[in-house]
This record gives sequence, structure tokens and C-alpha cells, in this order.
Amino acid sequence: MDIPSYVQDKAIRARTASRILASMDTESKNRALLRMADALELAIDRLTAENRKDLETGKKAGLSNAILDRLELNESRIRQMSVGLREIAALPDPVGAISEIRQRPNGMAVGRMRVPLGVIAFIFESRPNVTADSAALCLKAGNSVILKGGSEAIHSNTAIIAILKEAAIAEGFPADAIGFLDTTDRQAVMELLKLEDYIDVVIPRGGEGLIRAVMDNSRIPVLKHYKGVCHVYVDGAADLNMAREICFNAKVQRPGTCNAMETLLVDRVVAPSFLPSMMGQLTTAGVKVHGCEATRKMLPDVLGLAPDDFHKEYLDLEMNCRVVDGIDGAIEHIARYGSNHTETIVTESHRQAMRFLREVDASAVMINASTRFNDGFEFGLGAEIGISTTKLHAYGPMGLEELTSRKFIVFGSGQIRK
Amino acid sequence: MDIPSYVQDKAIRARTASRILASMDTESKNRALLRMADALELAIDRLTAENRKDLETGKKAGLSNAILDRLELNESRIRQMSVGLREIAALPDPVGAISEIRQRPNGMAVGRMRVPLGVIAFIFESRPNVTADSAALCLKAGNSVILKGGSEAIHSNTAIIAILKEAAIAEGFPADAIGFLDTTDRQAVMELLKLEDYIDVVIPRGGEGLIRAVMDNSRIPVLKHYKGVCHVYVDGAADLNMAREICFNAKVQRPGTCNAMETLLVDRVVAPSFLPSMMGQLTTAGVKVHGCEATRKMLPDVLGLAPDDFHKEYLDLEMNCRVVDGIDGAIEHIARYGSNHTETIVTESHRQAMRFLREVDASAVMINASTRFNDGFEFGLGAEIGISTTKLHAYGPMGLEELTSRKFIVFGSGQIRK
Repeated sequence: MDIPSYVQDKAIRARTASRILASMDTESKNRALLRMADALELAIDRLTAENRKDLETGKKAGLSNAILDRLELNESRIRQMSVGLREIAALPDPVGAISEIRQRPNGMAVGRMRVPLGVIAFIFESRPNVTADSAALCLKAGNSVILKGGSEAIHSNTAIIAILKEAAIAEGFPADAIGFLDTTDRQAVMELLKLEDYIDVVIPRGGEGLIRAVMDNSRIPVLKHYKGVCHVYVDGAADLNMAREICFNAKVQRPGTCNAMETLLVDRVVAPSFLPSMMGQLTTAGVKVHGCEATRKMLPDVLGLAPDDFHKEYLDLEMNCRVVDGIDGAIEHIARYGSNHTETIVTESHRQAMRFLREVDASAVMINASTRFNDGFEFGLGAEIGISTTKLHAYGPMGLEELTSRKFIVFGSGQIRK
Repeated sequence: MDIPSYVQDKAIRARTASRILASMDTESKNRALLRMADALELAIDRLTAENRKDLETGKKAGLSNAILDRLELNESRIRQMSVGLREIAALPDPVGAISEIRQRPNGMAVGRMRVPLGVIAFIFESRPNVTADSAALCLKAGNSVILKGGSEAIHSNTAIIAILKEAAIAEGFPADAIGFLDTTDRQAVMELLKLEDYIDVVIPRGGEGLIRAVMDNSRIPVLKHYKGVCHVYVDGAADLNMAREICFNAKVQRPGTCNAMETLLVDRVVAPSFLPSMMGQLTTAGVKVHGCEATRKMLPDVLGLAPDDFHKEYLDLEMNCRVVDGIDGAIEHIARYGSNHTETIVTESHRQAMRFLREVDASAVMINASTRFNDGFEFGLGAEIGISTTKLHAYGPMGLEELTSRKFIVFGSGQIRK
């Protein structure tokens, strides 16, 4: 079969399966998830063998050690995947929930019922553990999914999907509930992105290059974030010890994540008492700091700033520091350079805190907490399939509810319109 | 200025204004809406004079009487526009509402705050009264709007917008909160649809041709419905008198609307007792009926069906009738030919009713009520900017809440991530 027919066939099958999935009850879905979890643990040898093929090809192709590390599956990582599936089985099922029932003057009751989105295309890079997680989230929310992983993980992903599918089929699920593009041909993704009649939403997860490629070619709505240029603003009324802990945590605890701090903003009035010790602590931890003029006047060792630096997502032990004129300066800076991801204010002033909360436009706006908390699990959603930094449909971490929609339902007794 | 620069300039201004709008309080927004309502009533002469220019051009261009009627503004229609604005002023403001605050184990409180979407492009045809309504809904939800009406209403729309803008500015609103593309050049829309960096969502309202043109050219997410192919399914356990009233209302009360019935589905077991009198009543009202073979066997006067008829949105006193094998046949038919708009079952059986409610995929699924109720006002949303038949972001009538999003908010006390 040629690529366009192959991809379209997958999409039509997924659409057909989605109608069956939409009416599966919670117990059946949970039984399938638990069986999938067991099946992965029973296949540790097979999975690590298949993964080894990817690692060897990757080494030959000269992939970096960081990428090879993300690509690797070992026993502990496979068991972790199973734990993830069992956690998703334990989450409440959003589908079918009825809410906001209101009696209308004519006696009709109008409410909303939560329904699956339908068919989700999930396009991702590198980490094979994401495969099981995303398939499980889609299935629990009653959606078919079509997965497309990176070519560097093709053997690992093919094996994982085969195991998950087999377990789902054994529990009575349609074979096409979990679809997989088992090709490394890039044309397959391009074809997939045209199929708006069969696919309801595309969720890409990976580097900015992948996301832009999806955005530029998709006729289907996309839920995504390009990058996280997150700020901590240390206000003049901050508890400076708290500020130090939050900034350090936001930058250093796991710098390679999208919710790590990339630029520290400091109110001019506390800069002299805050910055020297803060910079000392960061430098000792190996952080390279690029500072504005005011920062460098105070601390001549700080590096200079290139014009584009405030837009940068370093994803590393590197960051910017800027002295600003109070909360107005901070809000202005964030509006200009932020990526609508995560923004934090550190302050003891209720007024400043509430103003920041209201006026800053980001998927998560925080008072006195590390940016690192913007995550589905930390926010109590149970798990996440990604983070959205655009406001349509979902803004912030996307859990099971964000993989559903709500239709209107009407309980009438013969009402007609006058 | 050339068209691309002109449109981009409008979009950048709208984006800048949206930041100011987002933090306007409810009282200011309501004051502006009431002033806009008064201003329209004070300008009845000016508005009817401008409208007359459009009507004359339209007559010369040979527009149909139906279109000319929709295009016409008279005193009563202008007063109705003002009433609409006052109703929107009276609706609760969704912006800033905080919900779902939950305490996390580490002591952080995580919740959600409703925020405006940002900048909305609203592209519509013919009826100039839609102009005031949509501008008011966007403003109340804290969004900037860029309006683009049909070229046939250019004088009317230009005058309405000028009056609304003046009133809003007098109440301290930024001049660019309500933007208007005062050109009849089609290229302007094409340029607008490229500006994903400044515009958050496009809402087209009009015929299927307009919607498809927007969909085919937009890089910005679109909230829309193509058409309404709505069904009433008369179940074997229906109260047949109720069924007759609902079917008649759904087809005849206002056949030109998207929530009118286009196809009647009847359970085979009640077809002989239901169809003859039903068809008699519809025919007497001037409805042309196309029937399936089983229908025509019973009623030889009924017209035949062309292969494509089940997909048709007649928007007129014309419809299809099909005899089906119970609820399974009805659900199958709707899944194949429906447009995810509005679907009704008439039945006294609780089991059948609940099955239909769960298994039918449409923006509104009803039990024992006319399809004509799928409307923001009838559902209690107060007003609507349109109906969405895709599941992302909104499914069904879109009111003020659907013109907003929710960001995550965190109230911390120094939490850092371990």
C-alpha cells in the first residue's frame, strides 16, 4: 500500500473504533489498562532486546548521550511504565459525567454530558515510555489514538504498541483503538495531518522543530506548547529567603524541563540586598548567568546579554537576570518575552500577588511557589498528556478531562418552540 | 497602505488593546454596553440612511428578496439590537471567576481562573444586527474583536461599528477593542487568517461556502459549524401525539434555521400508525417529503430519494423520511449522515432515551423536545455568538463562557519541588 492509502486506512479504522470506545464502561477500560500494565512487565526481555536495536542504530548515527539516555528502556523504566498505567486505571473516568443541569422556564432540563473527543493523533519524539502513557490516557478518556514516534525509537515503540494492543484486544477492545504508524517515512506524518475528517485533534510532543513542523502542516486543530520561557519575579515586598529557595529550585532542580526558570526578574528596590547572595548560590551550582546592565554594575562577573537572550529557552544551567521597576516592569517584561507557560511572583504583599495573578497571561500563574510545579501530576490531574500554552480548549497541563468535550443534553416532555 | 499591512496593523492594535480589555472590571464593561445600546437608538436615522445605500446596491446587483430582507435595518430592528446589548450587559461576567481550588499535599492551593481568549476575528454575512451582538459579546468577555462583514452590508456595518466604537471610547475603552475591516476586498480576509501570532480564534458565521473558505485558509483555530442536518427519531415506544407535535415544530416552525429537522426517522413498528397522519399534516403545511422505499410503499404520493438527499440541509419546507429498524437503525443512520448538530429521540422508554443520549454524537442530544431548541438563548446561556459542531473548546451554542479560557493559578507559601 502506498503511504497516503496506508495512513488514511489507519485513520478510518481509528474513527470506526472510536464509536465503540466511546460507549465502553469504566470497568472494562480499567481492566484493559491493568492487563496492559501486566503485559509490559511480562515482556521486559522482549522490550529491552528491541530497545537495544534502537540504541545501537542511534550510537552508529552519532546521537548524543543525552538522547541515547532518554531512548533507553531498562527493567526499572519498564516497571515504571506499568506503574503509570495502573495509576491511570485508578483515576476517575470523565466520560458520561453530567453537570450543570438547569431547569428552563418551559420545563425542559438542559445540561452537559462529558464525551470523548474521538480520534487523537499523538506525535512524539525519543522517550518510548511516553508511548504507553499517552495510549493509556487516550483509551481511558474513550478516544482512539494514532501514535507516531520518532524514527530513532521505531523498534521499541513497535514492540510496546504490539504488547498494549494485544492486551486491549484480549479485554474486548477493538484492534484499532490503538493505532501506530510503524514507518519512519516522514511523509506519513504529513498525510496524517491532512485527515481532518477522521482525526479530531493532534497533540505533538517534542522539540520546537517538531511542533512547528506539525503546526505548519496541520489542517487538524493542534494542542501544544512551543517552549517554556518561564520567569520568577522577586517583588520588593518578597521574603528574600523564600525567594532564594524558589529561584534556586526553579532553575537548578531539573533545568532541562519546560517549566524551569529561564529569566529572573528582580524589583530594583531589593536588587542590592538580594542579587549578590542569589548569584553566588547559582554560580556555585554551575549556573551561567547573563545579566542586564544594572545587574552587571552590581556584579561585574555576570555575563552580558545578547539581544535575543530574553526569548531563549536554555533548558540547561544557564539563565538571564534583569532588574525591573517593580511589578509594572515585571508584567511588561513577561508580556513581551514570556511564552504563556509558567510565571511566578514572590511577594508578601497581597495586593501585588493578586495583581500578578490577574494580569499575567500564562497557562499557570503562581504566587510564592516554584515554576517547576506546572505539571499535571503536581496539580492533581493524576497524569498529563502534555501542556498547552494556547487558550483554545485547554490552557496548562492536559489530563483526562482535557481529552474530552461536553455536549448539551436535553430532558424534555414534549416541548416545542413557539 | 496595502492590504497585508492594513490588516496586520489592525491585528497588532487589537492584540495591544486586548491586554487592557482583559483587566477592565465588570462595571466599566457594562457601562460601555449600555452606552452602545443608547447610541444605536439615537442614530436610527443615520443607520437607516446608510442601510438604504446597501439595499439599493443589493437590488441593482439582483440579490434575492430573502437576502434583501435579512439585510434591512429599520427602527424596530435597531431597537432590537439595543435590547440585545442591554441583555448582554445584564449577563454575569465570566472573567476572573475562580473555581476548583484544591489543596495539594504540600500545602499549595491549585485552582483555575477564567480569562479572556484575547483577540477574536468574527467573519459573517448579510445580517447587520449580528454586528452589534457579536461585538458586545466579545467585549463583555474581555476580548478584542476584529469584525469582517459581507460586502453587501458594508455601509450599514461601517456605521454600526463607528457608533459602537465611539460609545466604547467615551467610556474609557481602547479604540482598538472593536476593530473593523472596512474594505470589500476579499484579500483582506485571506490576510487576516494568516495572523496566528495576533489572533486567537476565528469564528465564521454564514453559509457553508464562507465557512469552508475560512477553514481552507486559516492558520488560526476556527470555531464553526458547516451545516445542520438534524434528525428526529420516533421510537417504537413513542407517545405518537407528542411525536407529531415535535416533528411538525422541528420542520415547520422556522425551516430556514440550522436546527430545523431535515430527516425524520421512524421505527418500523410504529411506521404504519404514525406516518400516514404525520405526512398528511406536513403536506398540508406545504412540506415536500422525500421518502425511503418503505415509506413510499405505504404512501405512494411521497417523492423519491436521490442518493445524496440524506446529506442535505434543505433550509426550506422540504425533508426526508426513512423507516429504520429501531434505535440501532436510527443511531447508525445519524452516525453516517448527521452533522453533529442536533438530534432528538421521541420515546417513553427510559432505556431507549438514555441509550440515545449516551451514544449519539451531536452538539445537542435531546429527549422528547423539538430540535429547534438548540440555541444559546433557549439553553439559558443568555446569548450566543454561534454554534460549534466540532468538539474542541466548545460543542454546541457558544455564549460568554465559550469566549473565555481558564488558566491555572497557584497560591503557595514558599513550596519548592523535591
